[in-house]
Amino acid sequence: MTLKEKVGQLNQKLYGWQVYKKEGGKYELTDLFKQHVETFQGIGALYGLFRADPWSGIHFDNGIPLKDCLHVTTMIQQYLKKHTRLGIPVLFSEECPHGHQALDSTVFPTHIGSGATWNPKLQQRVSNYVAKELQEKGVHLGLVSTLDIARDPRWGRTEECFAEDPYLSSRMTEAVVKGMQGEKREVLAVLKHFAAQGSAVGGHNAGPALIGERELREIHIPPMKAGIEAGALACMAAYNEIDGIPCHSNRYLLTNILRNELGFKGFVMADGVALERLLHLSGDKELAAKYAMEAGVDLSLWDDIYTQLEYAVENGKMTEATIDMAVKRVLYVKFLLGLFSEAPLEEKIVDREEGKRLNLEMARESITLLKNKQNLLPLNKDKPTIAIIGPNADHVYNMLGDYTPPQRRDSVVTIRDGITSIAKDQDTVLYTKGCDIRSEDKSDFEHAKKLARQSDVIILALGGSSAREFGMSFHTNGAVINPDQSQMDSGENVDVANLRLGGVQEELVKELAQLNIPMIGVLVQGRPHSIEHIEPYLDAILIAWYPGQQGGRAIAEVIFGEVNPSGRLPISIPFSSGQLPVYYNYKDSGGKRDYYDESGEAMYSFGDGLSYSSFSYQFCSKQKLFIDRQLLSEGKMVELPVDVTNDGPYDGYVVMQLYIRDIESSVTQRIRELKDFQKIWLRVNETKTVTLALTEEDLSIWDLHMKQKVEQGTVLLMVGDSPKRFIEKELIIQ
Amino acid sequence: MTLKEKVGQLNQKLYGWQVYKKEGGKYELTDLFKQHVETFQGIGALYGLFRADPWSGIHFDNGIPLKDCLHVTTMIQQYLKKHTRLGIPVLFSEECPHGHQALDSTVFPTHIGSGATWNPKLQQRVSNYVAKELQEKGVHLGLVSTLDIARDPRWGRTEECFAEDPYLSSRMTEAVVKGMQGEKREVLAVLKHFAAQGSAVGGHNAGPALIGERELREIHIPPMKAGIEAGALACMAAYNEIDGIPCHSNRYLLTNILRNELGFKGFVMADGVALERLLHLSGDKELAAKYAMEAGVDLSLWDDIYTQLEYAVENGKMTEATIDMAVKRVLYVKFLLGLFSEAPLEEKIVDREEGKRLNLEMARESITLLKNKQNLLPLNKDKPTIAIIGPNADHVYNMLGDYTPPQRRDSVVTIRDGITSIAKDQDTVLYTKGCDIRSEDKSDFEHAKKLARQSDVIILALGGSSAREFGMSFHTNGAVINPDQSQMDSGENVDVANLRLGGVQEELVKELAQLNIPMIGVLVQGRPHSIEHIEPYLDAILIAWYPGQQGGRAIAEVIFGEVNPSGRLPISIPFSSGQLPVYYNYKDSGGKRDYYDESGEAMYSFGDGLSYSSFSYQFCSKQKLFIDRQLLSEGKMVELPVDVTNDGPYDGYVVMQLYIRDIESSVTQRIRELKDFQKIWLRVNETKTVTLALTEEDLSIWDLHMKQKVEQGTVLLMVGDSPKRFIEKELIIQ
Repeated sequence: MTLKEKVGQLNQKLYGWQVYKKEGGKYELTDLFKQHVETFQGIGALYGLFRADPWSGIHFDNGIPLKDCLHVTTMIQQYLKKHTRLGIPVLFSEECPHGHQALDSTVFPTHIGSGATWNPKLQQRVSNYVAKELQEKGVHLGLVSTLDIARDPRWGRTEECFAEDPYLSSRMTEAVVKGMQGEKREVLAVLKHFAAQGSAVGGHNAGPALIGERELREIHIPPMKAGIEAGALACMAAYNEIDGIPCHSNRYLLTNILRNELGFKGFVMADGVALERLLHLSGDKELAAKYAMEAGVDLSLWDDIYTQLEYAVENGKMTEATIDMAVKRVLYVKFLLGLFSEAPLEEKIVDREEGKRLNLEMARESITLLKNKQNLLPLNKDKPTIAIIGPNADHVYNMLGDYTPPQRRDSVVTIRDGITSIAKDQDTVLYTKGCDIRSEDKSDFEHAKKLARQSDVIILALGGSSAREFGMSFHTNGAVINPDQSQMDSGENVDVANLRLGGVQEELVKELAQLNIPMIGVLVQGRPHSIEHIEPYLDAILIAWYPGQQGGRAIAEVIFGEVNPSGRLPISIPFSSGQLPVYYNYKDSGGKRDYYDESGEAMYSFGDGLSYSSFSYQFCSKQKLFIDRQLLSEGKMVELPVDVTNDGPYDGYVVMQLYIRDIESSVTQRIRELKDFQKIWLRVNETKTVTLALTEEDLSIWDLHMKQKVEQGTVLLMVGDSPKRFIEKELIIQ
Repeated sequence: MTLKEKVGQLNQKLYGWQVYKKEGGKYELTDLFKQHVETFQGIGALYGLFRADPWSGIHFDNGIPLKDCLHVTTMIQQYLKKHTRLGIPVLFSEECPHGHQALDSTVFPTHIGSGATWNPKLQQRVSNYVAKELQEKGVHLGLVSTLDIARDPRWGRTEECFAEDPYLSSRMTEAVVKGMQGEKREVLAVLKHFAAQGSAVGGHNAGPALIGERELREIHIPPMKAGIEAGALACMAAYNEIDGIPCHSNRYLLTNILRNELGFKGFVMADGVALERLLHLSGDKELAAKYAMEAGVDLSLWDDIYTQLEYAVENGKMTEATIDMAVKRVLYVKFLLGLFSEAPLEEKIVDREEGKRLNLEMARESITLLKNKQNLLPLNKDKPTIAIIGPNADHVYNMLGDYTPPQRRDSVVTIRDGITSIAKDQDTVLYTKGCDIRSEDKSDFEHAKKLARQSDVIILALGGSSAREFGMSFHTNGAVINPDQSQMDSGENVDVANLRLGGVQEELVKELAQLNIPMIGVLVQGRPHSIEHIEPYLDAILIAWYPGQQGGRAIAEVIFGEVNPSGRLPISIPFSSGQLPVYYNYKDSGGKRDYYDESGEAMYSFGDGLSYSSFSYQFCSKQKLFIDRQLLSEGKMVELPVDVTNDGPYDGYVVMQLYIRDIESSVTQRIRELKDFQKIWLRVNETKTVTLALTEEDLSIWDLHMKQKVEQGTVLLMVGDSPKRFIEKELIIQ
């Protein structure tokens, strides 16, 4: 290969929607595309050919409909074959944070909701389904946020994280990789973002992470490790720096840790225009290219840096050997995915009803019940009259989160839709919006109160919105510049300082509370809101996260008791943003934890959540546990069988959580760390034995010399279905 | 020496107030003291013999008055000489965060106020004076907080920090060491706390610092380096951990960095009972002793860990050689300070008027003017009637900060005292409290409004309180357990989540504002309060910090124009705690800085502050600056002469600040970094040339390999007397 051809393979410069023109149902490749192919004699990857959203400007009228997708990818591959010397096919990469961001795709709950299911097997089935939608179109790479740990809920991308906890996030990452890649690996997951983006200072999007290496290893590396062990062959570097070194120029991170320690064999993709941010360091494109390439970034994204790689080599700033390494990685993946296979792509038809069922299943399991005063829930379906009020009661896009394609009205079930479809008598379901997410407009309050007065119960759908709108302005990387023009108050680049509900939502709650009608609060949101000030007014509280296209149906099923809620918080809910951070797994300093004026703890902690039923549990054995380090290193696990009984009135899921606290350790440990969990179904009065287990890795610490090892001493084990009710046992490591 | 005798030298187990009994003006040593001496055949150091405050329970009735101090220290030394085999004298260590915390000592502004003076020379004179007060009593060690950098204003010890900035803190640390130790080094400063306590997560006192090594080196190490270069021979380890390793067991910090890199030759003292916190790691006292001793902690404080050193050696957990090293360090300091000298201690009489003058001078220079609408200030002394209102208008202890000894009423000038003493007609000065710091009581509002209506101007003294009260409860390390019983809302262990003014203070402002009388807000506080909600109602705003015993006088002088204010913010003032951190020297991530709902910047930035006069400035030369790295390494400085003119109507100080921004750097740099400053006096219409300068160290970065070096490239220089008005110039490093 010529140097130019090599550089071509490392570029993903074009935005997918720039490469085609659609006219009268026919597709043509643009001059921009053709020139790029001509210049570099090929393309490494093409991002977002099917991306549809306000940023790309692609919608139902100008986008590629489902039936034409495979045709377009095939056309591009054929063009490359014909018009380049080597005829290397391109990798098609697509955004899939919660389903493919393309027209008529299935839009699942965002990851924070998926995290709330505590059900990696379900995530695996969902990811497997998403991969099918990609394959159907000829796409190879699905970009998925799985590595970001939600340490600061001010961050607008909290919704893309599975959890504040590395263990839960790791299990989910594993599920995404296994599900998306399947046995055959026809699609690869590109795991984002590596690493530590969730620790950005102040919750600022892409802000610097000031953390040290131990914090990095304890909190942010585990999901990547789990992903690699599950077969991950691609990841994306994170925008942020870690203690002064941007991830995109961080050789210690991308080569020493990722490849040498963790054994990663795939390629590292840059984040969108992230390499251009290296100009802050280098002041010079060729040098920026050198920094990134030498650190271990193989493939660019939209930037004008890797297009300069040729000159960087020619001008003696870096060697061609470094480039060869990256090219090998990209070509290795192309081989592996069968891009060089001569066999024609078989057409695969996806069963979209399967997607719908899975989507509903995930929404059901994600819904998290936090309060249920006097068992107000579930409601009787015959309940005479229900008022559904709130900005998130009947808003299609507010159900879906950021990175969502345009929707047809009938593909999304809003809460109003869901309730109406289940309620016995549709005429007794009243609705009004009440207020908006962020505006100060109270003009609908009187109407809301009027409807409420006619009702026996109020369902108040509040929360946030990550709904982009056509007409907004965007950065070159797709992040929102100025969301003020809409009600969007969450999502990428939409970070907040104050976690209270926006606009006049709190006032709406208080005004309605004066009517003394039972009130169910449903929070549709991508980040935890501080609800201290409205909690007393709500008789029941459900967190629905952004529940996806079937969300309204799932919420209605929970409200009417067709589904027993089983979500558990994947992130702690603070009283206020002034007390951040409040993640559960903080380090014990031996000092006080509370502030003078506020608690230091979360209002609701990670792992919390109620069921309509109740569960009791006890250790099968009362004996103390002992384990020998040698046995651990040989693969033996500490097993902890627990008898769990459903002693409440409903069948349902219980989430048994196992936390450890290392009491004797040469390095400071956290107050609690999740190390295993199981979600199991129990019928009324049924008892099952759940065996939770600890591996060598679970019990290891990063010691003084930054080596991972198990130390002798006592570890406290805590087991329960909520942090409020633990049973405890000591484990002695010998 | 026997092992026991050595262990004795490393112990500072006793609380000073436990060693004597005072009866009928006579002093006797307690059995506790005698037993301790007997057991260990000596004492390394004795803490707080003269400490007087609610925690120690010492006040004017039971404490040691000035005239007896030397007598008591002499008595103790003589006892040791007589009753121990080797007769090694003890080091007397005393708390001096802002003056000696003893009866009838001079109580200066807390360090955050001293930082606001931007006048290290003045700090040096103050520290020199404090040392005289110590010497007069036979004391050897003054414990001073100089190393803590105020990165999170929620922290209750913010008042003990000089600044949020390492450079300003370093210059002040240098001043403390030089001032306190003088030429003769008869008193040593024990610099606290090493290191990174100001980066504790959430602003929690003694909370874990999660930061990486580069952040540690850039922000927290510089003051210690400056202190050592100025001659520091003692420091105190910090309570917090850094990325998993408690400072007290952190050999990398206390030995590799402190001794090997920075060349520290003195001893490291433990913080109070901090060694007992190592039991979290070790589970065992002897092991805790070993961890600390091997890390480099030489001398204990109150803990029951170093009393076990003998057994740690006997049981083979550590070697006696390690102990020998620590003993040598302690004895070295005792020799150096002349403790082994046979010459009788000469009696030194301190000129307390000098202390008073210095105290007033520092208070004057610390007061920071942030707003002065239509030049409301200075007030005319003949101004007919003034209403002084607010919880900090006439409260002795609220002027003084934490770590303050009991006061005689006439030793403190409150704001009311100060205004009354200067105003032409005392009968036209009206006063009422209005409200308390934190209570919800509004019963005085009507009275306050009544007085206000009779007045031409209102002086509203608001803020916080670090005033401990007798009867409060304390931890074994002296930190407050439950401040609820008083109005104390700041100080050690009193951290807050919300930075708005406490109680009904904001309401008081708003109610008084309705009267449309000019209103001057004076904020007496140890941490920045968020004043966004009251700022519009105040015509003038003065931050007085905790201004010390002469504070009320200084504030009055500023208000009446006898003193032209010259303080500059040593810490940024946030709009809210939800937007933390807002320190000025953040890292440029290339992303957005503002939140969706709030600014990401401070309301008032570090370095900000007004004068009654105005100043203009320009570079003496318009030429670009060049410097060769070789020359820098040979000690050459980049000199930057600036012509500064007072073109306003008052003589006064201007604080010329030089910041840099490293534009091309292999490691992410901060948006701005202070690297030099000068405070100069200018008469009306006077022009002076100020030459600011940059050394090799100022221009160096901590590179990828954690080496400190100067890189080639462009550095932007910004000069001004406020961050709002910079003149800029580029420096090219070749």
